[in-house]
Amino acid sequence: MSLKVVFIGAGNLASQLSKAIQNNGFKIIQVYSRSKKSATELAEILSVSYTTNIKEIDKNADIYFIALKDSVIKEVLAQIDFQNKLIVHCSGSLPLSVLTDYSDNCGVFYPLQTFTKSRFVDFSEIPVFIESEKKENEELLKSIAEKVSEKVENMGSEQRKILHVSAVFACNFVNYMYTVAADILKSNNISFDVIKPLILETARKVQEMEPVLAQTGPAVRFDENVINEHLKELENFGDYHELYKSISKRIFEHHKS
Amino acid sequence: MSLKVVFIGAGNLASQLSKAIQNNGFKIIQVYSRSKKSATELAEILSVSYTTNIKEIDKNADIYFIALKDSVIKEVLAQIDFQNKLIVHCSGSLPLSVLTDYSDNCGVFYPLQTFTKSRFVDFSEIPVFIESEKKENEELLKSIAEKVSEKVENMGSEQRKILHVSAVFACNFVNYMYTVAADILKSNNISFDVIKPLILETARKVQEMEPVLAQTGPAVRFDENVINEHLKELENFGDYHELYKSISKRIFEHHKS
Repeated sequence: MSLKVVFIGAGNLASQLSKAIQNNGFKIIQVYSRSKKSATELAEILSVSYTTNIKEIDKNADIYFIALKDSVIKEVLAQIDFQNKLIVHCSGSLPLSVLTDYSDNCGVFYPLQTFTKSRFVDFSEIPVFIESEKKENEELLKSIAEKVSEKVENMGSEQRKILHVSAVFACNFVNYMYTVAADILKSNNISFDVIKPLILETARKVQEMEPVLAQTGPAVRFDENVINEHLKELENFGDYHELYKSISKRIFEHHKS
Repeated sequence: MSLKVVFIGAGNLASQLSKAIQNNGFKIIQVYSRSKKSATELAEILSVSYTTNIKEIDKNADIYFIALKDSVIKEVLAQIDFQNKLIVHCSGSLPLSVLTDYSDNCGVFYPLQTFTKSRFVDFSEIPVFIESEKKENEELLKSIAEKVSEKVENMGSEQRKILHVSAVFACNFVNYMYTVAADILKSNNISFDVIKPLILETARKVQEMEPVLAQTGPAVRFDENVINEHLKELENFGDYHELYKSISKRIFEHHKS
């Protein structure tokens, strides 16, 4: 008999994870979201029912996956009687303990990736980090994780938080740097396309070598001429001038020692 | 008769570009570098002669590729009599005009990529930007560029400088963010491997969507709880605490408007 799953939340992560779970033989019986648009979209993709009414969340699931913004998790959970079923959150930054008031069976299932609804990701390559107090729940979560991913590890809440912080640097802040590059190019009518191979190669490089050894550019070469030329170019770019100066300084400091 | 090329410089860029040029039917006749180690290493790979003596640079080349640090180009060029042969620099930030004192035939050949000696890159995918005053030199450089790359464009010095600035954000500053992530993970005995799929996906995403639309994470969600948790985690990480705050603020400002 296959496990019955309810998804609470229908955002970027929920959309991708629910598909991966369904594709691997688990039965999603319902999707809940406060947003009707999100709920219906995901329910349609999964061909399952949905609700936007928290009181109508299906009581017959074996596992409840909670994929909500960290800031609303507690508020939502407080309104549901899980009857001690297994409830699992997918957050990097929240400890397992945020769930323990709402069920005797709690777990964490954290896939380390950046998710967007519209963009299919191959879940098999995504590392999944599992945590649970009870051995049987841990085993269960592990068996689900191992169906969807080839990289499953146990990790406690403290370590997971560190992982999440580092992901902010390696993904969110990196993407902001892409945004700045795109802005600068756009203001000079240069297509963002020209810089795409550079972006890919920069990411590929650190698959094989330590980032500290992969560093290139004027800051690590202590090439003041180029840095000053660049700063002159950025004089009309408001904050990007300051950003350029501050990151260059950091690269310099990091590598001079 | 194939064109005879001398490479002045034997660093990261010179190593990769000279190989690509040689593999596409051009004859490299000599490599010059002040550093004997760099000169011999590259000369061996190319099976050509080398010199570390600037006075012994071969006078019989048709083209001289100058792949030196921007800060030393002028000093080196002033010591060579090019007899008005075509001299070409490969710098994103220097204008064509830095060459005009040293020959009547000058050009720029700028491949937009991050190069490391030890890491082979497929040159065919690298955009190459060409500039020259004389039509015949432009045609010649274009024909070389089109042998090594599928993406060749003309671009003037001012535009190229903008391109180079944006590359600093999209590559050098991005790599610094990877370095910070690696540091944070290492200090907690977590392998950098776990974050590699995230790094790749972050780069792949912007191959298909605008970076501003690809932004995820607590800063763009205005999720103060998570940001404050992360800042607490970073309290013992010195400058990374400040860096986290300042980039999060920028993402927030960028997306609230």
